[in-house]
Amino acid sequence: MQLEGKHAVLEALRAAMPLESILLQEGAAPDKAIDELRRLAQAAGVAVSTAPKRELDKRSERGAHQGVVAQAKAFGFAPIEKIVRATEGMSNALVIALDHVTDPGNLGAIARTAEVVGASALLVPARRSAALTPAAWKSAAGAFAHVPVVREANLVRSLEIFKDAGFWVAGASERASQSVWEAPLEGRIVLVMGSEGEGLARLTREKCDFLVSLPQAGRVGSLNVAQATTAIAYEWLRRVKAGASE
Amino acid sequence: MQLEGKHAVLEALRAAMPLESILLQEGAAPDKAIDELRRLAQAAGVAVSTAPKRELDKRSERGAHQGVVAQAKAFGFAPIEKIVRATEGMSNALVIALDHVTDPGNLGAIARTAEVVGASALLVPARRSAALTPAAWKSAAGAFAHVPVVREANLVRSLEIFKDAGFWVAGASERASQSVWEAPLEGRIVLVMGSEGEGLARLTREKCDFLVSLPQAGRVGSLNVAQATTAIAYEWLRRVKAGASE
Repeated sequence: MQLEGKHAVLEALRAAMPLESILLQEGAAPDKAIDELRRLAQAAGVAVSTAPKRELDKRSERGAHQGVVAQAKAFGFAPIEKIVRATEGMSNALVIALDHVTDPGNLGAIARTAEVVGASALLVPARRSAALTPAAWKSAAGAFAHVPVVREANLVRSLEIFKDAGFWVAGASERASQSVWEAPLEGRIVLVMGSEGEGLARLTREKCDFLVSLPQAGRVGSLNVAQATTAIAYEWLRRVKAGASE
Repeated sequence: MQLEGKHAVLEALRAAMPLESILLQEGAAPDKAIDELRRLAQAAGVAVSTAPKRELDKRSERGAHQGVVAQAKAFGFAPIEKIVRATEGMSNALVIALDHVTDPGNLGAIARTAEVVGASALLVPARRSAALTPAAWKSAAGAFAHVPVVREANLVRSLEIFKDAGFWVAGASERASQSVWEAPLEGRIVLVMGSEGEGLARLTREKCDFLVSLPQAGRVGSLNVAQATTAIAYEWLRRVKAGASE
């Protein structure tokens, strides 16, 4: 992934997003943001070089580089088989699957929740899905270094693979008749969260073993997808801990 | 509250933050953002007028108005007595108190959660606390129109008022020995959440009837204060619903 502009590259460095290299414009005027960027890059061991403006113009994909272009390191997605093997024999395991969640901030926040509840992986489709942008790294607060992310072309096929490995697939849906507290949300679970606007796609919903709704007591609102994931994932963790103390 | 700059005022209009008036710079060059701003202001019934640049310069508090200065309507905070009266006789009631949560995005997200779980109010101290900025309105997604917000000079004194009214004060703390699942988190509860960096202040903690921790199963992370509020508030709601179906 290429990052452009002072703001984006600074945000990436502050969020500890791994960068390959940073290219700065030669002979640019003194600038506090660039000074901080150089300092953070040095601390993180990211190579910084300079080039004439025309070189940055050529590389720029958006035409607004502000004298800064950076290359992010390729993210190391986990193969699905690796997660299946890692969870073999675990009586409790959680995989959080995102059905086209497109907001990077939500993706990051969900990664943070996944890390905190001890989820085994995040599962995201390769298309129509939030990328691991600086904003995603920022809201993940370090979680991407610890929670494996599986990216697969076909979400439905991936759910089948987890089902074959002994997972139950639970889909979150406002229209479900069973609440998250009544549903069998325990043991080996793939929790599927729908997109911000449209919820679960039909094919995804049909692949779920059961659907769960998150009861709401307010007059108007609903949670955003990251908040809803936190509430449901904690209900799974509550049962894991209750089972362990029985 | 005065808002300055195209971005801030557009964000406020998009988030349905109530504005008193908008002042634009006379004779400014055509601008798509300003066009959208005019459109949204008209739809929201916000008065728009123009003035020479020197007038905006004079009003500007930050010196970066970009030709746009707006006045937000004064927010209608609720008197604490009103919330005490409104919750009288309720066997279940939740007030979410924030002990110097300073990030507006977190304040807004917590308001959204408060609305969705049916909380009776948010309680915030007047000082060292996030303001209801456009960013707060954005992440609240409309909740500020429905959840009363009580703002008091003295948080500890406010907790006493709720205690006198028959509330238990539960403080969220990573150091608590009781988990949120073991603690008596039911009935009439004031849930106190600490600041992003420092948790609960000592005087606040001492005023709590009990402390609750949110168990974490990950290796490194912790939730941000808004995510933690969602998880704990949903545990309160789970018990309300369980009690109702007994």
